[in-house]
Amino acid sequence: MAGAFKEKLAAAVRRSDSLVCVGLDVDPGRVPAFVRERADWIGYFNAGIMEATADLVCCYKPNLGFYEALGAEGWQGLRQTLAAVPRDVPVLLDAKRGDIGSTAEAYARALFEDLGGDAATVNPYMGFDAVAPFLAYGDRGVFVLCKTSNPGAADFQDLPCEVSGERRPLFEQVARAAVGWNRRGNVGLVVGATQPAAFRAVRAIAPALPLLVPGVGAQGGDLAVAVREGADASGTGILVASSRAVLYASSGQDWQAAARAAAAELRDAINALRGAKSDGARAIP
Amino acid sequence: MAGAFKEKLAAAVRRSDSLVCVGLDVDPGRVPAFVRERADWIGYFNAGIMEATADLVCCYKPNLGFYEALGAEGWQGLRQTLAAVPRDVPVLLDAKRGDIGSTAEAYARALFEDLGGDAATVNPYMGFDAVAPFLAYGDRGVFVLCKTSNPGAADFQDLPCEVSGERRPLFEQVARAAVGWNRRGNVGLVVGATQPAAFRAVRAIAPALPLLVPGVGAQGGDLAVAVREGADASGTGILVASSRAVLYASSGQDWQAAARAAAAELRDAINALRGAKSDGARAIP
Repeated sequence: MAGAFKEKLAAAVRRSDSLVCVGLDVDPGRVPAFVRERADWIGYFNAGIMEATADLVCCYKPNLGFYEALGAEGWQGLRQTLAAVPRDVPVLLDAKRGDIGSTAEAYARALFEDLGGDAATVNPYMGFDAVAPFLAYGDRGVFVLCKTSNPGAADFQDLPCEVSGERRPLFEQVARAAVGWNRRGNVGLVVGATQPAAFRAVRAIAPALPLLVPGVGAQGGDLAVAVREGADASGTGILVASSRAVLYASSGQDWQAAARAAAAELRDAINALRGAKSDGARAIP
Repeated sequence: MAGAFKEKLAAAVRRSDSLVCVGLDVDPGRVPAFVRERADWIGYFNAGIMEATADLVCCYKPNLGFYEALGAEGWQGLRQTLAAVPRDVPVLLDAKRGDIGSTAEAYARALFEDLGGDAATVNPYMGFDAVAPFLAYGDRGVFVLCKTSNPGAADFQDLPCEVSGERRPLFEQVARAAVGWNRRGNVGLVVGATQPAAFRAVRAIAPALPLLVPGVGAQGGDLAVAVREGADASGTGILVASSRAVLYASSGQDWQAAARAAAAELRDAINALRGAKSDGARAIP
């Protein structure tokens, strides 16, 4: 994997004029039936989605859970999928791993070396040494879960927590720690689009860290707030993840055209908001 | 997988008179060289370890990170390993997963259906709905990370957090939540043996939940405190995990005998402490 994630992502954003990150979350119950019938349906479906959308997106994000659920077939399909990703589009492996040092090293090797991901998501609950083996790959991106898009995010991430006498919600303490972990410039944060109030808080703490933003589409997140409050000063700095709305836009013969239309629509909606944010001053690449 | 995890574990504890859970964490740099040379070294090594220790342990715990790091070979080796586990010893899949509902469902399917685990570890950071799909398998055990054995455990798990006006460290709030999640009687907690003060706090909150206790051996945890404070009223209720100290007790031709001796030593040390705890009143099965 040549080149640092950050530069590869910036180049992909410029080339595609897009902040869309398509989540490649294969679901045997949702792919078109005539695709599902093929022995190589996982790789075939994802390659078809990428063929239809590669010029409209800045990143692809397979969530490993969907592949693990399919067993040996899933792992083979994931490898076929990764082999089919265009060389100039970075791959973010959404795995949310977190374990003690020696195991975290194994997971980092699995994601960055064996699977060759440009970036990965990690879980901060176990603290710095569970994340450090990922951070050690200075040319890969490490997105730390901060405020997630699901309802249960409130259970612990919102609890008022005290550090050095200062009380803030746990997710803000995680964001502060992540800023301190960013010695190699490769840290990002996950902030769900369903969490509008979190963007301003996180941007106040971490103005320059890239944000992975799940939760638009099926989860009902607020795209406008995510872009207005989440994008950095240059109008970029966020990756807006969309999976089901793009992948399963149609279950008919037009599945690729429908996926392309859905990705284009999301790109244009984000760009309209980016334009509004910068009062029309956003440079067209 | 027949029978509930809880009963299968209780039967294994009685049969082996042991609270030892051997972590099957394969490491190509540590297995004996003459084993490593075999094409099927992963399955062969683990089967050899299990052959040498099955009557001395109550559980086997493969950590998925070590298998994922080995790619396709690792997954095949994990399947061979799982196929070789004696039917009466439960398998705890140490995966520490946590994701939004639909993905958590996929991970739960992967661990409990595709791989057939009797129990699994999960990460609580994303809250209830990230754990619920695991809890829905009432016949499987779900061990929630609470106070982990690594140094970074202090980073967030120790932060004073407020719930309903009551300030407690985050790991205690997680323990309280886990008690509430235990509607099907299948919840456990992970508390590292390196965290002696945590056992009393966790047992005050969750007197009856089984505890998975990593961190003895290489990590330097305090076995005596873990057993004295962690074991429940019946002198059981903890699973003491040991991996490297058993698996890699010898890299010579005596690797199986050495693994057996290490497992027996740990079992006996725990049982001596259990005896001390109950003032000799512990029934010999």
